Amino acid sequence: MSPQARAMATRDAIVRGAAVVFERLGYGNASLADVVREADVTKGALYFHFGSKEELAYAVIAEQNRISQLSGKAIVALGRPALETMILLCADLGRQLMHDPVVQAGIRLTTEAASFPPTVLEPYRDWLLVFEDLIHRAIDEGDIRVDIAPDALARFVIPAFTGVQLVAAVFTARQDLLTRIREMWEILLPSVANESRWGQLRALPTLIDAPEAR
Amino acid sequence: MSPQARAMATRDAIVRGAAVVFERLGYGNASLADVVREADVTKGALYFHFGSKEELAYAVIAEQNRISQLSGKAIVALGRPALETMILLCADLGRQLMHDPVVQAGIRLTTEAASFPPTVLEPYRDWLLVFEDLIHRAIDEGDIRVDIAPDALARFVIPAFTGVQLVAAVFTARQDLLTRIREMWEILLPSVANESRWGQLRALPTLIDAPEAR
Repeated sequence: MSPQARAMATRDAIVRGAAVVFERLGYGNASLADVVREADVTKGALYFHFGSKEELAYAVIAEQNRISQLSGKAIVALGRPALETMILLCADLGRQLMHDPVVQAGIRLTTEAASFPPTVLEPYRDWLLVFEDLIHRAIDEGDIRVDIAPDALARFVIPAFTGVQLVAAVFTARQDLLTRIREMWEILLPSVANESRWGQLRALPTLIDAPEAR
Repeated sequence: MSPQARAMATRDAIVRGAAVVFERLGYGNASLADVVREADVTKGALYFHFGSKEELAYAVIAEQNRISQLSGKAIVALGRPALETMILLCADLGRQLMHDPVVQAGIRLTTEAASFPPTVLEPYRDWLLVFEDLIHRAIDEGDIRVDIAPDALARFVIPAFTGVQLVAAVFTARQDLLTRIREMWEILLPSVANESRWGQLRALPTLIDAPEAR
């Protein structure tokens, strides 16, 4: 391994260790000493890469947002209809939240972001833009009703998803998250779907926790 | 003032002071010294009433839940139809979140509750039960469609509200919270409302941020 590759690997290990610590203890309770122990690196290595707990939190959020947006781009690239893509994106982020410690910690830090300045808005903004664009496309494709305002629907779906995953974390450590995301879309779909397409669209939420999608 | 009344007043001042500190700093960053300063009480008075930061957090959550549930009971007692009552309850909690520091801190501590054991479930459970009961009644009253599952709808509306207020806190310090709650109900209503009542029900969300309701 070159020195650069080793430095990158160390930085990665620190970010993953920090994610585990932040998710377990929350931002306020976590200490840099916990991260050093969890990541199995030296204190010097940590301080070489990160100057403070705040910097470390931002690195976890940035890495989570990079992972989630990359995964999202792959789903958009499948070229499925926009409404189906929205549902697949929710299922995908749900699965990341169930299985990836960096995503768990990044989302948690983002929802607790009022705790450390400056406020973290980028991940919300990224998802709002992606969904607003998909809603426009779904209207053009005839799946979403023309009288739905794309900005208002995105401004509800993103926070609603945020709350659904948060409450699932509190009640069941996210074990039932995919079921809750399916129920969310079962409730939303009759409001937003074009009535003339209802026959084709009504089964879309079953994609979320279908066995083959897990 | 009797000694008992003075002790109660001191306890109240500590809980309100703790609420302001928790809301400003988050649970992890807050210290008992901050609370002593904010509440303008002695350290001895604080330790007479509360043994730890955790106890103080639970006291804030309990007081918030008491305030919100009491206010909710007054709204239920108005005897309005159940669907309208659900919408009024969301608007009421929204206004508390905009104006009452104890409610702001209690809800924030509840959403950050994964940070301190044991997990805080009571406030969520109380609201889930209230809404499940109201949804049953709204179905009986003919306002909500009979094919809506009350438990699934409650299991979505409570987390959705949680997420909406959280994202409003992050983006606008909750300045636009009532608008966001209205948009939430404008999106939900076509899914849940009985079609034959649509003419009477469609304007219900305007109750949320109508000037006279502020």
